Formats: sequence, C-alpha cells, structure tokens
Amino acid sequence: MSEAASRPWITERRRPRVVIIGGGFGGLYAARALKRADVDLTVIDRTNHHLFQPLLYQVATATLAATDITAPIRWLLRHQGNATVLMAEVQRVVPERRVVVVEGAREIPYDYLVVAAGTRHSYFNHPEWETIAPGLKSITDAIRLRQRILSAFERAEQEDDAKERAAWLTFVIVGGGPTGTELAGMLPTIAMHTLPREFRRIAHETARVVLLEGGPRVLPSYPEPLSEHARRDLINLGVEVRTDALVTLVDRGVVQIGGSETIRSNTVIWAAGNAASPLGKSLGAPLDRVGRVLVEPDLSTPGHPEVFVIGDMASISTKGKPVPGVAPAAMQMGARAAHNIKRDLEQRPRVPFIYRNKGDLATIGRHRAIADFGRVQLSGFVAWYFWLFVHILYLAGFRNRLSVLIEWAYSYFTYERGARLIATTEQVGGSSPSTQGS
Amino acid sequence: MSEAASRPWITERRRPRVVIIGGGFGGLYAARALKRADVDLTVIDRTNHHLFQPLLYQVATATLAATDITAPIRWLLRHQGNATVLMAEVQRVVPERRVVVVEGAREIPYDYLVVAAGTRHSYFNHPEWETIAPGLKSITDAIRLRQRILSAFERAEQEDDAKERAAWLTFVIVGGGPTGTELAGMLPTIAMHTLPREFRRIAHETARVVLLEGGPRVLPSYPEPLSEHARRDLINLGVEVRTDALVTLVDRGVVQIGGSETIRSNTVIWAAGNAASPLGKSLGAPLDRVGRVLVEPDLSTPGHPEVFVIGDMASISTKGKPVPGVAPAAMQMGARAAHNIKRDLEQRPRVPFIYRNKGDLATIGRHRAIADFGRVQLSGFVAWYFWLFVHILYLAGFRNRLSVLIEWAYSYFTYERGARLIATTEQVGGSSPSTQGS
Repeated sequence: MSEAASRPWITERRRPRVVIIGGGFGGLYAARALKRADVDLTVIDRTNHHLFQPLLYQVATATLAATDITAPIRWLLRHQGNATVLMAEVQRVVPERRVVVVEGAREIPYDYLVVAAGTRHSYFNHPEWETIAPGLKSITDAIRLRQRILSAFERAEQEDDAKERAAWLTFVIVGGGPTGTELAGMLPTIAMHTLPREFRRIAHETARVVLLEGGPRVLPSYPEPLSEHARRDLINLGVEVRTDALVTLVDRGVVQIGGSETIRSNTVIWAAGNAASPLGKSLGAPLDRVGRVLVEPDLSTPGHPEVFVIGDMASISTKGKPVPGVAPAAMQMGARAAHNIKRDLEQRPRVPFIYRNKGDLATIGRHRAIADFGRVQLSGFVAWYFWLFVHILYLAGFRNRLSVLIEWAYSYFTYERGARLIATTEQVGGSSPSTQGS
Repeated sequence: MSEAASRPWITERRRPRVVIIGGGFGGLYAARALKRADVDLTVIDRTNHHLFQPLLYQVATATLAATDITAPIRWLLRHQGNATVLMAEVQRVVPERRVVVVEGAREIPYDYLVVAAGTRHSYFNHPEWETIAPGLKSITDAIRLRQRILSAFERAEQEDDAKERAAWLTFVIVGGGPTGTELAGMLPTIAMHTLPREFRRIAHETARVVLLEGGPRVLPSYPEPLSEHARRDLINLGVEVRTDALVTLVDRGVVQIGGSETIRSNTVIWAAGNAASPLGKSLGAPLDRVGRVLVEPDLSTPGHPEVFVIGDMASISTKGKPVPGVAPAAMQMGARAAHNIKRDLEQRPRVPFIYRNKGDLATIGRHRAIADFGRVQLSGFVAWYFWLFVHILYLAGFRNRLSVLIEWAYSYFTYERGARLIATTEQVGGSSPSTQGS
C-alpha cells in the first residue's frame, strides 16, 4: 500500500513495468508500438511535448509558430490506456536496482527500460562558446534563436557605426550538416527580402549569411553530387559557403577561422556538433567517441538485456553501415525495441534491428531541395515538392497539419514571415533592449 | 551632419517630428491616421509587436498561439513611408526640452508627442504579490500563465498528498472585470474537459475555478442584467463566483479573503487592478488616483499642447461619462490626436475628443457571451456569434485571421487546445521541473 502510494504511476503491480525516457521520435514510436501490450508504460520527458524536430529551423526563422511543431505527449498517447506520462527531469539510471531516478530523488522502478534521451550540442571542449553561439535542439532554443535573429535587425537599424551595423547584419552558421544547411537556406530570404523592406536604414546588400563547414563539403552524409547541388543552391541564394573552414574561436562579436581569419558577427549559430545525452554514462555500458551507447544487435545494452537504447543515443551498424542520427532511424528503433519487449513477454526470441533507409531529404530555401533514395537522387523543384509532401504526411499525426500548410503557403507567396515575435527577456549582444511584452 | 547622425531616424529636418510612444491600439491608430501627413513619424515600443490584447486570455488558456495575436509594428506600418519604428524602452519624457529619453540615455526630439504607453498591473500596495499572482498584460505574461496553468496539472498528477493535489487543481482568479471573467470562462473547459482525459490520477470533480470580485457584481462596467447573466453563465460552467470578496493576502499556496477565510491554491491569477504607465508622471501633468493623466478635451496635456496622452493612460470624460479603458476608446483617441496634429499643421482649430461607444462585448466560455449596445442588450448564443464576428473583423488587419479561425473551430468542435506548449524556464510553485525543451 505505502509502496504503491510512493510509485503512483504503477497501478497494477503484476504487469511488467516498461519505462521510456524521452518523448522524441524514438520514445514516442516505442510507446505507440506497445499500445496493445499487457504492460504498464511510463513515458518520462523533461518537457510536456513531443517536438517535430525536422522543422525546428522554421520556428527559428519565424515561419512557423512554436505550437505548430509541438504536441503534448499526453495528448498523443491519450487513447493508450496502458500509458502514463510523467513530466520530470531524469537524473540517472541505476541498472543494478532497475530504477530511474528523477528530480526530487524520486525513484521509478522498471522491468524494461527504453532510453531515448537524444543528443545535446557539443562545443568541442569549448563550453564557453555556447552563450555566444547557441544551438538548435529544443523549442526554447528555436524561440531564442528567432529572438536573436529578429533583434539583430532591430539593433542594426539603431546602430550609427557602420562596422557595428555590419556585425549585426552578419549571420554566421557553424556546421554544414542538415540543420546548418537548412537554416542557411532560410536566412537569405529573411535577411534580404522579408525584413529590409520594413527598415529605413538597412540596405539589403549589407546583410551577409556565412555557412562554415569544417569538412570539405556541406551535407557530408549525402552523396557528393547532391552536396555539390546544395552548395550551388546556397550560393545562388546569396549564402557565402565556406568549406574546410575550422572554427578556432568564438567570442562576443567575432568568429575566428583556422586560427587567423576573423569574421565580425553578432549572430553566430551553432549547428556543428552533437554529443549523446549524459544518461548513457549512468547505464554502465560501453560508449563511442561522442558518448553514444554501443548497443547489441537487438538494441539492448551489453549485460542488461532489459535496457534498450535507441535513437541518437545509440551507436549501431546494420548491413555494414552506421545508422544515422535521423528521425526515421529513431522511429524504427523505437518500434523494434518495443517489438523485442513484446517477444520477450511471449517467450519468443528477439530479432535484430535493421535500418531501412527510405531516403534522405534536405531543403534549401524556397523551392529547392535535394533527395537521396539510394539509386534515385533528386534535386531542385521536384525534390522540394517531395520534401513538402513527406513533411505534411509525417505531421499528420499532429492536428497542426493544416495551420502549417497555411503558414507555408502564406510565406511562400508573400515572402512574409508570420511568426516574427520577440517575446523573451534574454539579452542579445551588449546592452540590450528589454524585450518583454508591452 | 553630426546632429543628424546622432538622431538617424529623422531623415528630413524641416518636417515636423511626431513621436508616438507605444504600439498598442492607441499608438497604432495614431500612426495610421498620420499616413498621409507631411511629418516624420517615429513609433517607439519596448517590444517589436502590436498585441491584439482582447484575445490575450486565449493564449494564456492554450487556445491560440502567441504568434496568432501579435504582428510586428514594423510590418503593420510597412507601407507608411513617413514612419520609422524603434524598438526601445522609453525611460522618461522631458517636456521642457521636447525630448524622449530611451535606454542608453539616447534622446529623441519631437515637435509633437503622443503618449500611449498603457497600463501595468496594480497590486494595491502589495508588489510582493506579483510573483505569486501574475497578471495578464503582455504576450510574455500570457505565455507564462499558460505554462503555469498547464504545469499545475502536471504537478497534480505527480502529487501523492491529496490536499496538495487539490491546491494544484484550484485556480483562483482575482478580479471580475472583462479579463478575469473571460479567463474564468475558459478555465473550466480546460480543467474539467480537455485535460483530465489525458491524466491518470486527476478526476474531473477535483478541479476548481474560483473567481473573486471585490465589488458586488462581476463585469461592473456593464448594465446589471448583463452582469447577472454572466454570473449565471459562469456558475453553469462550474466556476465558483464570489462577489464582495476582497483579497487581503496572497502568499505561496494560499489566498486570503476578507482577512479570515483562506483558499488553498497554487495558481492565482491577478486581473484586479491597473495603474497607468509611470511615464505619465514625467510629463508633469496632473494625474488621477490610478496615475492616469487628466487630459484636455483635445487630448493634449495642460500647459503642453504639443503633448497628447491617449488610451488607458488618459483620464477624460465625454458626454458626462468617463471614457473606459478599452481598445475601441484607445483607437478613437489615437485617430483624434493625430487629427488634431494635422489640424495644427493646417492652422485650423483643434476639435475635442468624443467617445462613441459602439457596444461592449464579453465572452464567457463556449458559445456564451454578453453584448451591450446601450439600448440593445444581447446575451447567450447570439451575442457569442456577434463576439466571434467582431473579433475576426478586427483581426483582419492582421494576416493571422485565418489561422485564428481554424484554431477556434478546432477547439470548439473537439474541446482540444491546440497550443499546449510549456516552453519557458520559469519556476512554478516550489521545486519545479525544468521545463526547457528536450
């Protein structure tokens, strides 16, 4: 009785308790795959919402509202009677005792655990760069980034010094992966088309968007011809694409490349590195270089078959290729981990995970995209329509689909941005205006 | 030259300089009425956006997105060539020297000044109540309030102590004016219909919504029969309406009424008092009890005919009745102040301001509203449709109209709330979960 009261989310003690950490693509698909399983399921997330991460950059660039790409995890699982949702920060896992420890030293016991806590930004041993060059992982990150970008124009408008004004109008994106490339593709439209019309002192020629990639090409995970296509698209949009450009210093108002060249910019965006959630460490499992857990073929951890690690936190190769840290892979892993739990309960042998790549997509600005389906590769207009179609299809699980379509149609035809709200109290640059509401 | 450089927003020194403080309804309508005037216009606001304040409570109750009811002031004035928009916090006005001082000790000179800085919350000499019982004026307030309301349910779900759980499920609104009444009308739908379905431990009977009004009736500015109608509507929705209930203490987890009775609640919302912006003081003009400037019949300040005060900051009676602090009054004052500036420039005499009340509207929950058009009074379904029509009409100046309609239709037919995002880092109650993105 007293034990039940201290672990209220476990209503029926005889049923196996499955705990899922993280309500992202991996965790959500694991939970859904357990819909008809005779288990007590608890999904823990530090936020109340599932985030449609592939469109996060559209919130950062003021095209979509934050509420367009988020949905309460509770709401997504509302028809799933065996699921309980807990909004709490997980502090660590104690695999020996089979408990998850959340804030307030509260312990949640499990029979099966699925860890899907994702990644965080990595600043290559320069954590001090984070305040100057924020990254883009959460909806809060996106709202802050939107505020920084919009405020930069407000500051430029008020700045008398030409050099300082140029620094406010220079946007540097560090990292040429999908996030960096998609952000870089959106910024020219805002910086050169949408906003300058409404300002009195900003001439559109003065806005600069610089994409810095440490390796030899952007979108390094794509085939080379598509990388080259994306590079040309970006350049046509007005982006300065710099490859083999290793960032050696980020400081207030300045980015240094290769130890010598500096770019003056008050808006530096970090899209360069990821490190797996530190939760991986507490599992006691072997980790790879970026902190991901080296999982078994069935996605469980060595020595703890009841603990699964999925999504961006898992390091695994299938068919001889490393599984990439993308949403479809996380979804597939979530479903497979859930499947293996069900097979355990039915006393059938587990099956290994095999990643099925249905294709990679990236969009670059207005009506340009690239798509890689292995044998077939698309670029340009056709790929862009395909990108649109796929994203609307996946958003279908959300009820936000229609409003997203409207926002897109609106900004496509008018070049306007519908979500240009500055509404946090964060400081931008030096002595900043208070941007709290009027 | 050097002078022009230090006041860059004034491009042509020979034209009269009109400065408007505040981009709300008053300031925006003043700016628009000066569209064809041969003046240099500067609109200063501490935020980047105009806020459609009458729908603010819908953001707080997770029905509309923050971006649905905000639009950049810059964007709203984009076709107005004589207007410059400045995002900055005004510190004071120096009427003797005809300058507005903004942050950074920057001075903006004017020939005409229109002050439309609105009101802030007033806690009746208890500023310490503000952190516990936040108010609802800005979009940031609304986002925070949404977070508090949604988090209260998350906390209740995790709480083992029955009394503490009840405190998380008790929502107290202080103040029975339009904001308090409209908030109170929305909360039961969320607290008793939308959310409990998705929680496992919250029975819908346990949620309480309490509306505390210090005077004898809710909506005191409306005719008595409509007040009574609103009271009955609220009671039917499940709201506990308490009139003659003067709040004597607000502390963590508790509200005290009349010096003795206490209500345990972890979510107290302040909708009780307004005080005019402190900018009124720096004008050196006579003020009323709540800090509003006693303006002349032409809306200028005594002794300074070049300074106008409009909207909620102005205290004026027309046709023997005090002008209420509502959006239509602010719009009309803005237009009239602008008109009087134009008449000055044409060397024609000024005309006094006369408020034309086109009717008062308030909505109470789903398909109930009251409307007062003087001789005609409506209530119930018809009034609610009218409310819907008028608000969509006024939002027409925004491009947000369509997405608002969709959100409304969606939440009306499904009882769902489309904008249930917790995305700030603010603390709620005691030891709070970090609600930053995943």
